[in-house]
Amino acid sequence: MENIFTDEYFMKKALAEAETAFEKGEIPVGAVIVIDNRVIARSHNLTELLNDVTAHAEMQAITSAANYLGGKYLKDCTLYVTLEPCQMCAGALYWSQISKIVFGASDENRGFSKLGTQLHPKTQVVSGVLENECSLLMRAFFRTKR
Amino acid sequence: MENIFTDEYFMKKALAEAETAFEKGEIPVGAVIVIDNRVIARSHNLTELLNDVTAHAEMQAITSAANYLGGKYLKDCTLYVTLEPCQMCAGALYWSQISKIVFGASDENRGFSKLGTQLHPKTQVVSGVLENECSLLMRAFFRTKR
Repeated sequence: MENIFTDEYFMKKALAEAETAFEKGEIPVGAVIVIDNRVIARSHNLTELLNDVTAHAEMQAITSAANYLGGKYLKDCTLYVTLEPCQMCAGALYWSQISKIVFGASDENRGFSKLGTQLHPKTQVVSGVLENECSLLMRAFFRTKR
Repeated sequence: MENIFTDEYFMKKALAEAETAFEKGEIPVGAVIVIDNRVIARSHNLTELLNDVTAHAEMQAITSAANYLGGKYLKDCTLYVTLEPCQMCAGALYWSQISKIVFGASDENRGFSKLGTQLHPKTQVVSGVLENECSLLMRAFFRTKR
């Protein structure tokens, strides 16, 4: 039987979250956290609605997944996020010891890889999954703001 | 009239928060955020009690201060924190555009300055305020864990 649970499969769920953010007037970033092919957290950027710079999709997903698991470490979990995490989110992912981070679009200015934020040595990173779809949504958003 | 509102004055309030964390069995880090010599947020590390790696004192203080101010930017605010902020917290402080960060003890391993986390260009940093008191509390805590 073919495996339907690919990185694209879960990134589409993160994209659906990003679309919800877009519809709310938020910078359209969405995230899900997955363990054993099950989504245990889903979230989207809410910095404007909550008036809170810490309300990035990833931060909410980390809190939510830890709450679901009943422990603060996200070993054996994968985060799917439509945009490359920033320093804050990468720093939180460092503490969480998450197994894998999959992101869609790169963030050349504020992404963690450009800024050299340290991840946990056990964390694997995959980039560029549904990159075009993720970037398109960001560009469409910023066009509405001009 | 003498100005009582020194950096030490507010760091003592952050230390009182750190002591509360200690009493709860948390790594003893405390923080306050101040605007115009008024404390508008106070918090301490709650990562164990909340099972949440994002529950550092600084993160809670940022959310709380923004909530109080009704806006997400912390311009004209000063954060007092007993331990040097980590990558996550420094990344959040970057987004907040906070005016000033004052910390007590340095964190040689996981502090933002060692790890090169970028702060907002407008943010001023002062270190070493009540450093001994802040370090002493940390050392006392880790002694109880051995």
